[in-house]
Amino acid sequence: MRSFFFKLIKYKYIKSQIFTNFANCFEFMMKFTLQAIADIVNGIVEGDSNLEVWQLAKIDDLAAAGSIGFFANPRYESYLYTTQLTAILIAKDVVLKKEILPALIRVDDPYTAFTILLETYSEVVQQQYIQTKQGIEQPSFVGKGVQKGANLYIGAFAYVGKDVILGNNVKIFPHTYIGDNVQIGDDTIIYAGAKIYDHTIIGKHCTIHAGAVIGSEGFGFAPQSDGTYRNIPQLGKVILQDNVSIGANTTIDRATLGETLIAEGTKLDNLIQIGHNVSIGKHTVIAAQTGIAGSTKIGNNVMIGGQVGLAGHINIPNKTRIGAQAGVGKDPQEEGETLLGSPAFAVKQYMKSHIIFRQLPQLQQRVEALEKILKS
Amino acid sequence: MRSFFFKLIKYKYIKSQIFTNFANCFEFMMKFTLQAIADIVNGIVEGDSNLEVWQLAKIDDLAAAGSIGFFANPRYESYLYTTQLTAILIAKDVVLKKEILPALIRVDDPYTAFTILLETYSEVVQQQYIQTKQGIEQPSFVGKGVQKGANLYIGAFAYVGKDVILGNNVKIFPHTYIGDNVQIGDDTIIYAGAKIYDHTIIGKHCTIHAGAVIGSEGFGFAPQSDGTYRNIPQLGKVILQDNVSIGANTTIDRATLGETLIAEGTKLDNLIQIGHNVSIGKHTVIAAQTGIAGSTKIGNNVMIGGQVGLAGHINIPNKTRIGAQAGVGKDPQEEGETLLGSPAFAVKQYMKSHIIFRQLPQLQQRVEALEKILKS
Amino acid sequence: MRSFFFKLIKYKYIKSQIFTNFANCFEFMMKFTLQAIADIVNGIVEGDSNLEVWQLAKIDDLAAAGSIGFFANPRYESYLYTTQLTAILIAKDVVLKKEILPALIRVDDPYTAFTILLETYSEVVQQQYIQTKQGIEQPSFVGKGVQKGANLYIGAFAYVGKDVILGNNVKIFPHTYIGDNVQIGDDTIIYAGAKIYDHTIIGKHCTIHAGAVIGSEGFGFAPQSDGTYRNIPQLGKVILQDNVSIGANTTIDRATLGETLIAEGTKLDNLIQIGHNVSIGKHTVIAAQTGIAGSTKIGNNVMIGGQVGLAGHINIPNKTRIGAQAGVGKDPQEEGETLLGSPAFAVKQYMKSHIIFRQLPQLQQRVEALEKILKS
Repeated sequence: MRSFFFKLIKYKYIKSQIFTNFANCFEFMMKFTLQAIADIVNGIVEGDSNLEVWQLAKIDDLAAAGSIGFFANPRYESYLYTTQLTAILIAKDVVLKKEILPALIRVDDPYTAFTILLETYSEVVQQQYIQTKQGIEQPSFVGKGVQKGANLYIGAFAYVGKDVILGNNVKIFPHTYIGDNVQIGDDTIIYAGAKIYDHTIIGKHCTIHAGAVIGSEGFGFAPQSDGTYRNIPQLGKVILQDNVSIGANTTIDRATLGETLIAEGTKLDNLIQIGHNVSIGKHTVIAAQTGIAGSTKIGNNVMIGGQVGLAGHINIPNKTRIGAQAGVGKDPQEEGETLLGSPAFAVKQYMKSHIIFRQLPQLQQRVEALEKILKS
Repeated sequence: MRSFFFKLIKYKYIKSQIFTNFANCFEFMMKFTLQAIADIVNGIVEGDSNLEVWQLAKIDDLAAAGSIGFFANPRYESYLYTTQLTAILIAKDVVLKKEILPALIRVDDPYTAFTILLETYSEVVQQQYIQTKQGIEQPSFVGKGVQKGANLYIGAFAYVGKDVILGNNVKIFPHTYIGDNVQIGDDTIIYAGAKIYDHTIIGKHCTIHAGAVIGSEGFGFAPQSDGTYRNIPQLGKVILQDNVSIGANTTIDRATLGETLIAEGTKLDNLIQIGHNVSIGKHTVIAAQTGIAGSTKIGNNVMIGGQVGLAGHINIPNKTRIGAQAGVGKDPQEEGETLLGSPAFAVKQYMKSHIIFRQLPQLQQRVEALEKILKS
Repeated sequence: MRSFFFKLIKYKYIKSQIFTNFANCFEFMMKFTLQAIADIVNGIVEGDSNLEVWQLAKIDDLAAAGSIGFFANPRYESYLYTTQLTAILIAKDVVLKKEILPALIRVDDPYTAFTILLETYSEVVQQQYIQTKQGIEQPSFVGKGVQKGANLYIGAFAYVGKDVILGNNVKIFPHTYIGDNVQIGDDTIIYAGAKIYDHTIIGKHCTIHAGAVIGSEGFGFAPQSDGTYRNIPQLGKVILQDNVSIGANTTIDRATLGETLIAEGTKLDNLIQIGHNVSIGKHTVIAAQTGIAGSTKIGNNVMIGGQVGLAGHINIPNKTRIGAQAGVGKDPQEEGETLLGSPAFAVKQYMKSHIIFRQLPQLQQRVEALEKILKS
């Protein structure tokens, strides 16, 4: 069952995965003093705090000078006395049995400290990179009445329609299309080739990944008596609140009337479909290739796995968890339920039924055996 | 079961949804006389037909002057005598018990009249908007031998290849790619960043949404004896007939030889995959994220829900209905069947089986109980 | 069961499909002598080897002069003596009963020879077409330090970032976005509007279809104690080895650290999602709309159907086959297994269980009948 919640569960694995992927050595693009590192991880230097390191390495490697590693697992204790690391993140209560080469940075939890170090470094690098994007590359198209914030980047071949309002530090990568009357808040990044239709409102600190389409006309067709379909115009819009992330090639339809809403802090993965007039609450995460039909309301802190389908016009309460590939067709009864299957029901019940599903031929044979006994 | 057909069923909900989303008040962008409105809804004015309204409102609201509402549900009768609406759509047979403020527009069915009013207004707004798109923005790229109809719009950064034929009123939004020898019929709209490969033929009154890819090479790879795959060139094309709608980021592969065909009036939602040499009949609707493998033929007036998968080389008869997330691997036997599940079978049978699936642990216990009784 | 493996099975159908789609007549865009054709199909001409043909036709058609067909099925023997074909591909051991009009090209297997002829022709046409794409169209954007190979094509509105390395015969279609420090090997084609993020490495002879997004930030968000999510920077990259094909609007996330890897000869269909740090082996084929969660490793020569979901952090051994719409949550035990269902298990077992699933109401009735008998 663990594994089946695949895309949900991945959030738990992010930290361990950093180590898995970390391989043996990771080189920084700058040098840090041990004091600077101690400040980041809330630790205390034992040794020369002016020493510099410029790469991360495992303690069991043939680590070169200039590297920092961590000591958490007692099995690796022997390495402590032989390693060539310049510094080691180490727990406050570890007592060394003899002298060692590396300086120490004493911390509460070396594993967590190492993770924080890597994440902090990553954020610095990413921030530095994004701040190199400045100014308006040519050719680009900026319509009449556009309001521009400070530190703006507009990439070549980007199109910004009439009366668009762009906040400070907005970064618009090449080939982005922004329709008329769009509003984009401070520090929002829109990657290459995203398409934002007219009247969309995007908050602060949002990230829109390449190829995402926000505000396209929903799938509204009224069946006619002759079997044809008539197009229903879609006059509403899309609102993304602050800190929202939208994955690559994800599509979000605008409302028929009113708005399609993605609330604060919610994260959507790639290739997701959000129908017209859908409303998604705060701090909800949705994995790739999930589809949500029109007018469905999703609460706060919901987790939805990959390839899930949600019917239109239903309500998903706060903290609901929906496993990958589930199909939800009616309102869950209460907050915090965990659902699986298509149509979906409680995950524990689903897994019990599924185990018997796998053994249905045997169950049928047992029924046959009983029938034979009773006949004779 | 209703709810499980999620994306199918939504077509029925479109009208009610207009009201759901309509909230309390909707402001027109222009003023209408009551006579103009009576003409739209086929009604008769009782009162001053020169009065003007500029917004829609509910009868149970604190509606302001300048608003028009409707009276359909007898429960709301008391509001008739207190509302500040300027005009009310009302059935022909309603007898008022005392004098009221609003003028009346007598119609057969006030609910339908209100819907028609809203839809008509929406269409006018949309038409007016699209007609503001005129001329050729710069920079754009138009190849040799391109034939251009009247009232053409080519947005900035659009690319139109050689020998392309563009009808009247064709609107090509920014970043659109149109390959060589493409034909596009009158009144067709192609939104930002759609990619139309060489030789594609698109009919009249079609809508291609942002990011759709039409005519890309199908997934044709011949397995070789050494375990590698050889690419099979795809020389065919894609034909979209009149009144076809293609959703955002949907992909339609061109034929190996011959054509991939989407017939008249058919509507495809977002993120759909159509394989090479697929043929889809007239007035068929397909919801988001459905995939159709190569060479499958789909009839007329078929309805397919979201996230459905259809095998290659099968035939789906006219009027078949396929529920969301179904997987169809063989030809349905007759017209008009309704299918669900993966592999799919008749929906009623599916739902019966699914109810027992949910109770499999109990069924197994009953078999165990029988076995115990017979043993003893 | 055959049909359910839909998108897998299609590889077997490619040849027959060429004939299905071939209709009645296919005209070459050039003329071939019979000797040239004999050279292509490894055959021997009986008759005038300088005769020219310029179309393919069926033997049972009213074939015009200038056509070449094939004779494989004895049922069509009578046509041999009446057809107007200029030449026929025919098996070496066929003995003619009387004189015929067409010249013969004797081959081992006429059906295979005909296929080879069509494929070879298709490849020539495609090669010729792609070689017409030469030079740098304007406006386009080429950053500092870009290394350009011979016979390069950069379409209008394409964006090539800083320090990009482009091999020989690289073809970059309009609206393509290529970030900084990307490397692209010889003979690789990138179709319109694909987005390649910074630091991606693409091998030789690759094809990237329109709208594909390669190297976007993965879905990495660490849950915080207050219910919000913190963004985990993604500093890794994507590597595509030689002869890789990526479908339209497919998305491939870059690694958190290290790399997301698609190995040599692997083919991905449209609208696929590949999570961060996924590794896919050699000569693996994956059909449309499949999603693979982060850090999963897939072996060589694996076949994955459409709309499949794979959990994160699992290992799929070499030669595994996964049927359409399956959900795989844990490691298959050995090489070469065939899986179906969600959660997936062995296909034979799945189909047996599914047959009983369809008859669950009857099974339940049988249990009820037994219960009644035992009660009375």
